[in-house]
Amino acid sequence: MSSLQDRQAAGGTRVVISVDAMGGDRGPAAVVAGISHSAKKNPELDFLLHGNREELDRLVGKRKILDGRCTVIHAEDVVRMDDKPSQVVRHGKSTSMWSALESVRSGDATVAVSCGNTGALMALSMIRLRKLPGVNRPAIAILWPSSNPQGFNVMLDVGADIRADAQDLLQYALMGTSYARNALDLTRPRIGLLNVGTEEHKGRAELREAHDLIENHASDGAYEFVGFVEGGDIPGKRCDVIVTDGFTGNVALKTGEGTASLIGQLLKEAFAYSPLSRIASVLALTSMSRLKKRIDPRRVNGGVFLGLNGTVVKSHGSADPTAISAAVKLAFQLARSGFGDRLAARVASAAELAQDDGEQKDHNKT
Amino acid sequence: MSSLQDRQAAGGTRVVISVDAMGGDRGPAAVVAGISHSAKKNPELDFLLHGNREELDRLVGKRKILDGRCTVIHAEDVVRMDDKPSQVVRHGKSTSMWSALESVRSGDATVAVSCGNTGALMALSMIRLRKLPGVNRPAIAILWPSSNPQGFNVMLDVGADIRADAQDLLQYALMGTSYARNALDLTRPRIGLLNVGTEEHKGRAELREAHDLIENHASDGAYEFVGFVEGGDIPGKRCDVIVTDGFTGNVALKTGEGTASLIGQLLKEAFAYSPLSRIASVLALTSMSRLKKRIDPRRVNGGVFLGLNGTVVKSHGSADPTAISAAVKLAFQLARSGFGDRLAARVASAAELAQDDGEQKDHNKT
Repeated sequence: MSSLQDRQAAGGTRVVISVDAMGGDRGPAAVVAGISHSAKKNPELDFLLHGNREELDRLVGKRKILDGRCTVIHAEDVVRMDDKPSQVVRHGKSTSMWSALESVRSGDATVAVSCGNTGALMALSMIRLRKLPGVNRPAIAILWPSSNPQGFNVMLDVGADIRADAQDLLQYALMGTSYARNALDLTRPRIGLLNVGTEEHKGRAELREAHDLIENHASDGAYEFVGFVEGGDIPGKRCDVIVTDGFTGNVALKTGEGTASLIGQLLKEAFAYSPLSRIASVLALTSMSRLKKRIDPRRVNGGVFLGLNGTVVKSHGSADPTAISAAVKLAFQLARSGFGDRLAARVASAAELAQDDGEQKDHNKT
Repeated sequence: MSSLQDRQAAGGTRVVISVDAMGGDRGPAAVVAGISHSAKKNPELDFLLHGNREELDRLVGKRKILDGRCTVIHAEDVVRMDDKPSQVVRHGKSTSMWSALESVRSGDATVAVSCGNTGALMALSMIRLRKLPGVNRPAIAILWPSSNPQGFNVMLDVGADIRADAQDLLQYALMGTSYARNALDLTRPRIGLLNVGTEEHKGRAELREAHDLIENHASDGAYEFVGFVEGGDIPGKRCDVIVTDGFTGNVALKTGEGTASLIGQLLKEAFAYSPLSRIASVLALTSMSRLKKRIDPRRVNGGVFLGLNGTVVKSHGSADPTAISAAVKLAFQLARSGFGDRLAARVASAAELAQDDGEQKDHNKT
């Protein structure tokens, strides 16, 4: 296989993304369709495609746009959605997921994309890419449609780890700050800590401790801290980055998606109700498609694993070509902006902050 | 003040609801407007209205429908949204919230309704009404619009207590079963336990333990257990009752509400975008209002406190007259159906189940 170095020598500013073609609910056909779409939109993009060679060669052969821009790397096995992460770590060496991460580890690609089993992908990423110095728990960050001017908020963690202590939540605030700068172009993001009320005495003990930690480090961290926020602020405009543990974040993410799809379904029923409303729906078509484009979860598909030596974009398991293309677009943006290096620098300073803080145990509020 | 007994003697099947008129964000005017609306709809409904006598007499005097059906009970003080529950318990005796609960305690009313501070209302309810025998942590249950045939799912706890162990979650399953029978008319509700994945090995230890407990008691409890569910199932049709701790439930509830209101706002913008889409929006008006009626959170306003000697309906703090009327309607349904007694009977059996279970520590799966 030709290395990233060769490609860069040949192509100048080319960006190589490593893609796990198997493991998603819709199989490799959806993945190849998705990357073809991305290839059309971004001429400087090349792919390393991991999975069953025979099947992938056939699928790639049908797409002219991928000609010369997609290298297939054979992997015998696939990580299934119900495989236990611990088993994948021990026995998953021949899987397409492992292989896709290996290309980032070796430097052949800058970012990896997979729509496979989240737990396995996180476990493998931790083992193969390793955590950045100073990071205790890596996190998955997503973009969430919001009423803020930038149109989206960042939320993390949405499922890398079901636990997070105060120190972890401070790291999430710092990693979220980096991500908001690179993905949303915000110079001084506003951080909110998710809780069940905005009063400072509410919620679990670790959240009150995290409140003080994050508040104390706001100026070093170059973010603004707005304090506790509630579930309603995730799609709102009180802050730009919502910090929470992976259990709560995952439930919130899926609740929001489920609510949006229920409303979509009810809207469809409402418009099919009477002849008059059917006419209205035809007239409303452009409005509706504008709205759909704005809130369609497929168009902001892609959780990003933060806190590792290398960037991994996790796409939805059920991702269709549109969603896969969105995940690849995100991977491309992050690869091009040098996000990985910037985040590493910030987390290194986070590690110092954490050390400082260990010494200063009586967290007086200022 | 005339007692419930007197009223029942005079009126036959009259139902008396105790209402905290102060403490909501919109003040007593919204509350009086809300109960007037309910009074119109339900002729057998009477009110005990707690708060500042002068202000309430003036507001009630303007509403002919309340003539002879609303007794004002003076309370000097108001519980504020930022009051600490512990302080309200110690010093809140002269508040309208305390007074409203006192009417349930004394038997003058069957159900109390308040749109004040949730934490304080729960703390006061626990102290004044006391927990039902066998209940460790009372819970707040809400109805959530869903794609199920009954149109709603029950979720609990949405914020009574930020903690819940496996035993508490079993009690929630049983209380949720009672509530689903009374509010949704389901004879054998399907229970789901909220987690970050549906695989049995996922999530926190107490959730895996609760999974086995709830599964083992399904036939005694007269519910069906569908296992772990995810955030997306809250508005979905995999189950009818979603069981979770109050922290997670509260975040999920507010995330869902926030997402719905963001979509509403974007929909409005989409329809205001061009002259054509404005015409469409006029034609679509009936469809939209049908939809709004279906998912408007004000129309299903009212969390119910379960597990106490007496029923308390907590309305949103920002409740307007429509929302307050919805909360009163719910209170009325529950009062009329004898829900309190039925729940008590079920929880008594839950206490027995819990005892059985303490003896059977090796929870083998069947």
